[in-house]
Amino acid sequence: MKNADYSALAAQFGTPLYIYDFDEIGQRYTALKSQFGAHKSLICYAVKANSNLSILKLLASLGAGFDCVSINEVKRAVLAGAKPYKIIFSGVGKSDDEIKTALEIGILMLNIESGAELERVEAVAKSLGKKANISIRINPNIDAKTHPYISTGLSENKFGVVIERARELYLKAHKSEYLEPVGCHFHIGSQLIDITPIHEAAVIVSDFVSELAAAGVELKFFDVGGGIGVRYDDESEPDLYTYAQGILAALKGKEMTIVCEPGRYIVANAGELLTKVLYEKVNGTKRFVIVDAAMNDLIRPSLYEAYHKVVALNAKNSDKTSKTDVVGPICESGDFLAKDIALPSQNSGDLLLIKSAGAYGFSMSSNYNSRLRAAEIAIENGKARLIRARESFEDLIRLEKGLI
Amino acid sequence: MKNADYSALAAQFGTPLYIYDFDEIGQRYTALKSQFGAHKSLICYAVKANSNLSILKLLASLGAGFDCVSINEVKRAVLAGAKPYKIIFSGVGKSDDEIKTALEIGILMLNIESGAELERVEAVAKSLGKKANISIRINPNIDAKTHPYISTGLSENKFGVVIERARELYLKAHKSEYLEPVGCHFHIGSQLIDITPIHEAAVIVSDFVSELAAAGVELKFFDVGGGIGVRYDDESEPDLYTYAQGILAALKGKEMTIVCEPGRYIVANAGELLTKVLYEKVNGTKRFVIVDAAMNDLIRPSLYEAYHKVVALNAKNSDKTSKTDVVGPICESGDFLAKDIALPSQNSGDLLLIKSAGAYGFSMSSNYNSRLRAAEIAIENGKARLIRARESFEDLIRLEKGLI
Ligand SMILES: Cc1ncc(COP(=O)(O)O)c(C=O)c1O
Ligand SMILES: Cc1ncc(COP(=O)(O)O)c(C=O)c1O
Repeated sequence: MKNADYSALAAQFGTPLYIYDFDEIGQRYTALKSQFGAHKSLICYAVKANSNLSILKLLASLGAGFDCVSINEVKRAVLAGAKPYKIIFSGVGKSDDEIKTALEIGILMLNIESGAELERVEAVAKSLGKKANISIRINPNIDAKTHPYISTGLSENKFGVVIERARELYLKAHKSEYLEPVGCHFHIGSQLIDITPIHEAAVIVSDFVSELAAAGVELKFFDVGGGIGVRYDDESEPDLYTYAQGILAALKGKEMTIVCEPGRYIVANAGELLTKVLYEKVNGTKRFVIVDAAMNDLIRPSLYEAYHKVVALNAKNSDKTSKTDVVGPICESGDFLAKDIALPSQNSGDLLLIKSAGAYGFSMSSNYNSRLRAAEIAIENGKARLIRARESFEDLIRLEKGLI
Repeated sequence: MKNADYSALAAQFGTPLYIYDFDEIGQRYTALKSQFGAHKSLICYAVKANSNLSILKLLASLGAGFDCVSINEVKRAVLAGAKPYKIIFSGVGKSDDEIKTALEIGILMLNIESGAELERVEAVAKSLGKKANISIRINPNIDAKTHPYISTGLSENKFGVVIERARELYLKAHKSEYLEPVGCHFHIGSQLIDITPIHEAAVIVSDFVSELAAAGVELKFFDVGGGIGVRYDDESEPDLYTYAQGILAALKGKEMTIVCEPGRYIVANAGELLTKVLYEKVNGTKRFVIVDAAMNDLIRPSLYEAYHKVVALNAKNSDKTSKTDVVGPICESGDFLAKDIALPSQNSGDLLLIKSAGAYGFSMSSNYNSRLRAAEIAIENGKARLIRARESFEDLIRLEKGLI
């Protein structure tokens, strides 16, 4: 982060520490939003990437909408000041309770992922005497060519429905007293550096929308999901102009509101994980730098073999480096933050910065090994502010201690 | 679980729900303990496998010790009634604060994993005017032949030190005013169905102990780590008699106290995860059963490609089955609990049981997608009792809400 005094931050807030650049988050939101120019658009930030209330509040204040995948994400968004009519509720497994709460709050639309879910939404809407705004997630059978765990556009995965099935569901919803089809939705994968597959999917779904219109089903929202990739290493981030133009072209003049659900793109590179070196050790021929952050704080390297750049904050340019793994204190070989990277020699107490940790970092963190989850801070106009307090032992045992 | 009325449990406690058979936990502890007969032994349950306070209390009441890998695990054990002199503190990355607290509590020993750590422990002990009981974790360079993420005995991983280095460290500790070498330690991996590697390691380390004794360093505790495998599918669990006899044989008549650190063996098969079916769907040719538990509740399938048996509680023997994936509501293709298993047709509200979920289940769980962590219950003498309350939305935002 520009001009950040990491030693001071470590002293004030402790480590491991998640640090977010709120100015950068705002800029990224605005850069994307502005690409659509005069065409109606709604940027629904994907809350799952980082659900901190202060981040949601910042984005809400800029006019963002929110893509939520559980009712608690919806509640977070509302608490942070989101307008209900800018909230989308997606996800393959919504419970009746979640559907009910979403309808009561009066969100923009529920993204439906299966025929069985459509029936549940209809039943719940009926019981409330309401009409549910829905869109259907279409699985366009397109290979997003990313990590298999975050690739979601092929028909053999659990997401969405194939076009033929979507057609049936739209016609069914159209006839229902309790369902109002207002949008269409797809999301084919995350961390796409080549965004052509999004454009291909957009063309397929846009043609389908025309077909539905001819059958009397008029949709207002064209939701292209998230998935815009970011630079972790030396990737070049997709060009936002090209991204937007491809979507506009696919729409072929339709006046639908374009909805995007970027998560990673908004927050990944606005976040860093600051960690302190505990020890260096050499085993056989292998060097390890052991730090106070671990896979419970950032599971991406372990789960997706994800790469995160590591910056040695003590280092001078002249320092000699050698290859090392950067690992955490957890008792698993899978507990690593970086493998085989070049780093100068580290002393106990030195600070390392794990870059690009704003997305799918804290939001996936756990208490494995009874480790306390990290604190989170915002840097805004050059000033640091706590946005989530570090957990305490008391937090760990709160729900157990009265029961022993 | 024998005679459990799962529908009643789901109705009373909700789903997803972790259910532990406390009788089974007790029996497993006792079965292992008894193998060592008249030979002095201490079974130190590996808290990381499942750190619920009530489980720790049960084991403490039976006389167990505890293997802890963070100071919060030590605190959990103490709170649950563990005797400090039965607590071991292991792990590659102990902070000064953690070392200090452990010395103040007066635990049995700190397992040292590097030269740098030995220095920190000495410094902290000196500052407290205490003598620290230590053991050194030896990396015997033995291939445990298990999943790479849980294989820890090869010298190219972060754990322990090679024998030559251990020798130096023991001699150094022996001379120090503030260090008392009392034990030796190894742990070569987890989920070992073939325990021969443990015996091989025991022989190597026992010979090393003899050598140290000749040099005047007399150790009292021979810690063989954890790692005893369990049946997830059709594996046959290692024979405990063989396990114990191999260790006793390796000791060659030494009168050292044998320390074991079983985690998985004690709790894995005493635990189940009860989950409710939300929807069934078919995409293309693939069937999915979507349930209300997800990778945030049980990450083992996703992280280790681990297999867990799934039992359909609605099923009759005569039911026709077909292949399906069992998946959760999280928006990732990596969110699955089982792949390509045979299951009868499921209706919304039906219950599934994920077996062998007692170890590395709840303890690795997270709030990803703002999902609330599950409740945990104990079944003891046929009666169910809540041992951890289900999280609430309030719990999710407690550390953030005052800061927006
Ligand atoms: C439906 C949906 N929308 C949006 C996103 C956000 O993706 P990204 O963070 O790659 O932009 C995801 C991620 O999994 C998703 O499943
Ligand atoms: C040092 C140590 N002891 C014991 C264990 C427990 O292993 P298991 O659950 O396989 O018995 C582990 C697991 O990682 C460990 O690292």
